[in-house]
Amino acid sequence: MDTNSVSPLPPLEAPLAMLDSEKTPPGTPNGIDMPPPPDEKRYEEDPDNAWNCCSWCEYLLIVILSTILLVGVLVLTLFWVMFYRDGFAWSESPKQQFNLHPILMIAGFVTLSGFSILIYRLCRCVKHIYVKLIHMFFHAIAIPCIALGFLSIFDSHEALQKVNFYSLHSWLGFVTMGMFVLQFVIGFFSFLVMLCCENKTYSCRSAMVPIHASLGLANFWLAIATSVTGLIEKERETVAETNVSAENKLIEHYITSAIGITLIFIGIIVTFAVRRSNAPASAKVYVTERI
Amino acid sequence: MDTNSVSPLPPLEAPLAMLDSEKTPPGTPNGIDMPPPPDEKRYEEDPDNAWNCCSWCEYLLIVILSTILLVGVLVLTLFWVMFYRDGFAWSESPKQQFNLHPILMIAGFVTLSGFSILIYRLCRCVKHIYVKLIHMFFHAIAIPCIALGFLSIFDSHEALQKVNFYSLHSWLGFVTMGMFVLQFVIGFFSFLVMLCCENKTYSCRSAMVPIHASLGLANFWLAIATSVTGLIEKERETVAETNVSAENKLIEHYITSAIGITLIFIGIIVTFAVRRSNAPASAKVYVTERI
Repeated sequence: MDTNSVSPLPPLEAPLAMLDSEKTPPGTPNGIDMPPPPDEKRYEEDPDNAWNCCSWCEYLLIVILSTILLVGVLVLTLFWVMFYRDGFAWSESPKQQFNLHPILMIAGFVTLSGFSILIYRLCRCVKHIYVKLIHMFFHAIAIPCIALGFLSIFDSHEALQKVNFYSLHSWLGFVTMGMFVLQFVIGFFSFLVMLCCENKTYSCRSAMVPIHASLGLANFWLAIATSVTGLIEKERETVAETNVSAENKLIEHYITSAIGITLIFIGIIVTFAVRRSNAPASAKVYVTERI
Repeated sequence: MDTNSVSPLPPLEAPLAMLDSEKTPPGTPNGIDMPPPPDEKRYEEDPDNAWNCCSWCEYLLIVILSTILLVGVLVLTLFWVMFYRDGFAWSESPKQQFNLHPILMIAGFVTLSGFSILIYRLCRCVKHIYVKLIHMFFHAIAIPCIALGFLSIFDSHEALQKVNFYSLHSWLGFVTMGMFVLQFVIGFFSFLVMLCCENKTYSCRSAMVPIHASLGLANFWLAIATSVTGLIEKERETVAETNVSAENKLIEHYITSAIGITLIFIGIIVTFAVRRSNAPASAKVYVTERI
């Protein structure tokens, strides 16, 4: 007797944010690792799960909008520093060295980290291992930016004999950097371990994914919050400066406000883009044949 | 012949953040609504899915820590306003009216909204419809707080003849309020529609859940970012005040920094708490019996 018993789970719309957990089946609760069966049909191979027109429109909108915002905020910061804050230089003048701080921090914590997070959404047709590698690559090139950005403000404070770690901005920045390092180390090691013995570490890695994803998003928002506090601190300093004309102060106010608003919209679009879909990959149609 | 064909999905650890989508089975991709079958076994009823010790420890830690932080930040703000900013009053003096702004906004946007989001995590043994009602109730009582907080700063600015919507903080606040209203309207209507015809609107509501959840989290972080910018603006104003002693300025600096750091940790813990688990409820064990 041939019985095709189909599980009552129907195929669903394609998951939009493909996280690790959604690409591989979950492990058993008793700690026994369960690698995906070799003959298992992948969710995205199912023609029923093809994206509809609406999904593609949303995908394109997010790709275009996020690229414009992520590159735009960096260009806007460069424009502000170059034309209104006397440009930047290393160790020539503390003021110009200070100016490196917003550029490098926004480049590392927002633009590069933002693209790194969005990679899970943007790279739809790329193998998951490459997505992970690109994710790590973007975060890896963010590290020198962040390190130099931190050194520039530290050196500049030393030269101007200002106290380090006094303002709320600096404390928020300290927490952001700490969480970034922690996330990078966790991500890097779980990625390395995965390459060594993929099947043995399955349940551990599977449990780490939602933690890494949620803390990563929290860290991204933390970086945005820290950036807007930095912008406000700088703007308040500019207001007190006597050698800047009232007109220039007003223009600078609008530029820093525009950077702040752009940062906020980046946060909203990234959070929206990497949301977990209602259709997990585990909701496949399983057909078990019995004779 | 009796054939028990079991889907290859094993029971998993209980989902930690129970969102709407995880409580109800998903609809079909072709738009046909599929209400849950009446005899379907609910995921959380399965004894295999009982929480282990680690899950309970994490649950308790998050409940205790988030309650301390969410109530603590409000108490800290009240303490700051009462003892260092001359308390608060309505329409007696613009300065005292201004002081209502941080208290009401932190109460509405952080404490009440934070508890409202965490309800999905905290209420484990409550029926899902009640969880939704409590979620809406917390947001509903946040509305008068936010409205009064907005009016207090508006009135205070009018009395002091200050320009409204000039600073970055005010623009961020405007975006936060706009998103809050949008989210409340969407949540309220989809909730009402659900009560009217639960089955007909299934696929629409199901698609709304991850959007509402991700934008809600983004809005929560937006509120935190806006709050820290407000704190920094206020602190910079205090530094410029001449009638405050240097010692009091330093204490105020530490209090506002403590409020800021607490807000950031609230953001991290809430993002961590409401993360989607790797084990969606749809990964049930389906047993189909054939004779």
